[in-house]
Amino acid sequence: MKPYIHRVHYYETDRMGVTHHSNYIRMMEEARVDYMAQLGWPYARMEASGVLSPVTALNVKYIAPTTFDDQVQINVRVKAFNGVTLVMAYEMLRLGGEAPVTVLTGESEHVFLNGEGRFVRLKREQPDFWQQLTELAEKV
Amino acid sequence: MKPYIHRVHYYETDRMGVTHHSNYIRMMEEARVDYMAQLGWPYARMEASGVLSPVTALNVKYIAPTTFDDQVQINVRVKAFNGVTLVMAYEMLRLGGEAPVTVLTGESEHVFLNGEGRFVRLKREQPDFWQQLTELAEKV
Amino acid sequence: MKPYIHRVHYYETDRMGVTHHSNYIRMMEEARVDYMAQLGWPYARMEASGVLSPVTALNVKYIAPTTFDDQVQINVRVKAFNGVTLVMAYEMLRLGGEAPVTVLTGESEHVFLNGEGRFVRLKREQPDFWQQLTELAEKV
Amino acid sequence: MKPYIHRVHYYETDRMGVTHHSNYIRMMEEARVDYMAQLGWPYARMEASGVLSPVTALNVKYIAPTTFDDQVQINVRVKAFNGVTLVMAYEMLRLGGEAPVTVLTGESEHVFLNGEGRFVRLKREQPDFWQQLTELAEKV
Repeated sequence: MKPYIHRVHYYETDRMGVTHHSNYIRMMEEARVDYMAQLGWPYARMEASGVLSPVTALNVKYIAPTTFDDQVQINVRVKAFNGVTLVMAYEMLRLGGEAPVTVLTGESEHVFLNGEGRFVRLKREQPDFWQQLTELAEKV
Repeated sequence: MKPYIHRVHYYETDRMGVTHHSNYIRMMEEARVDYMAQLGWPYARMEASGVLSPVTALNVKYIAPTTFDDQVQINVRVKAFNGVTLVMAYEMLRLGGEAPVTVLTGESEHVFLNGEGRFVRLKREQPDFWQQLTELAEKV
Repeated sequence: MKPYIHRVHYYETDRMGVTHHSNYIRMMEEARVDYMAQLGWPYARMEASGVLSPVTALNVKYIAPTTFDDQVQINVRVKAFNGVTLVMAYEMLRLGGEAPVTVLTGESEHVFLNGEGRFVRLKREQPDFWQQLTELAEKV
Repeated sequence: MKPYIHRVHYYETDRMGVTHHSNYIRMMEEARVDYMAQLGWPYARMEASGVLSPVTALNVKYIAPTTFDDQVQINVRVKAFNGVTLVMAYEMLRLGGEAPVTVLTGESEHVFLNGEGRFVRLKREQPDFWQQLTELAEKV
């Protein structure tokens, strides 16, 4: 998997001079979308299959700041998947210094819903995707 | 009409220490929505009638900055309406000092579309709203 | 304490038709700022005292959606304070239906820093604030 | 000059299913920053020279919508420069269809200020930059 790079925009900074903490939540989404596309599930395909995967929980630790023009590398992985709930994990690194600096670690939790808001049985309705997520989930 | 007040949020400021210029475009939307509700056209009623009014043009002059916690009064008026195109005008004032300071003047242009993206003949389909906008439009 | 009310703006919704999950993080900030002002610590006073309190962690559960024009009541409380780390807890309720619906529960963790980014010993430097937070922190 | 490409993020869409109009203002900033970097004036160099260039006016026509995952090519040019006021022009094209579709045309106006908010005499203080902008400005 190719890590996702986000370059911090001016409008993402705040009056403290750093990237506003809410914007990392958006970067997590960007990196997740990119990860799914790399898995073979670009948004258009997901949408065509009628499956939505809203965020049901977030858990984030802010470790070091970033600011305008910084390059942030975002590593994404599947942390857990039980067929119903998917947990994605994120690590963000600030590039450009002598060594990368860890900026954030976090997780997002998702469920899979159809257009009517009902749970989708992924194993039955998208068995390939179910298979991929199951294999990617870290073994405990 | 009661003017709309927006209190600047921390996340709306940028690294220059002031409200990011893109956020005033959002405040214009907030004030316009509030103005329409005061006219008797809250969003729910508009939506129920199937009419959308996307922004087709913007024109803004930035005169003085604002920052976190500032109170911004937004005066809205109908500048022009020809049955098809609506032009709204905005004046933003920073309150709290000895005298209000003009922050921004601007205009937004709108058309009226139905759910399929076709132009709505407002005079025929929403005659009351058409009448109101016609009367509110400034006489040249 | 008066709860904080946020009315969802159009620009806070996304293509799924609901408030984008990142925007609740911003609402948490709005409600926290309002809470601190009610405690007697409006931003201007904090800033004048040279103390910053960046977010060091977030933990959020998304329970029900909201959308444009919804009124969201945000209840804030001090969950824990050990003199160094402050944990605030949030409960968001969607108003306007027959009964309020729980939208989100969450926590944010903060530390106190001076302008140079060093930890502030709040007990010594802002004893009144330290006292208030200590008393407000929920007894376990 | 290499045109700037912005891929529309999910969080940039709104409930109408399209990119919210305020987000194009942010894309204009992204493209302008990129253009300045290509001219040899990346943000860090500007900042080191103590020169800020806030937006003093915006003028935008919205021609066609975009949505999540669309690639938007943003062409930037110097439209006018009189030594004090700089006008940048933007053209946005949606890629990916049979032919590019014009999404937006717009302009932003800027002045040059030092850290104290005073006008910078660019010709004297940054003669190289002044020269570049003068040559790039379109001849009427």
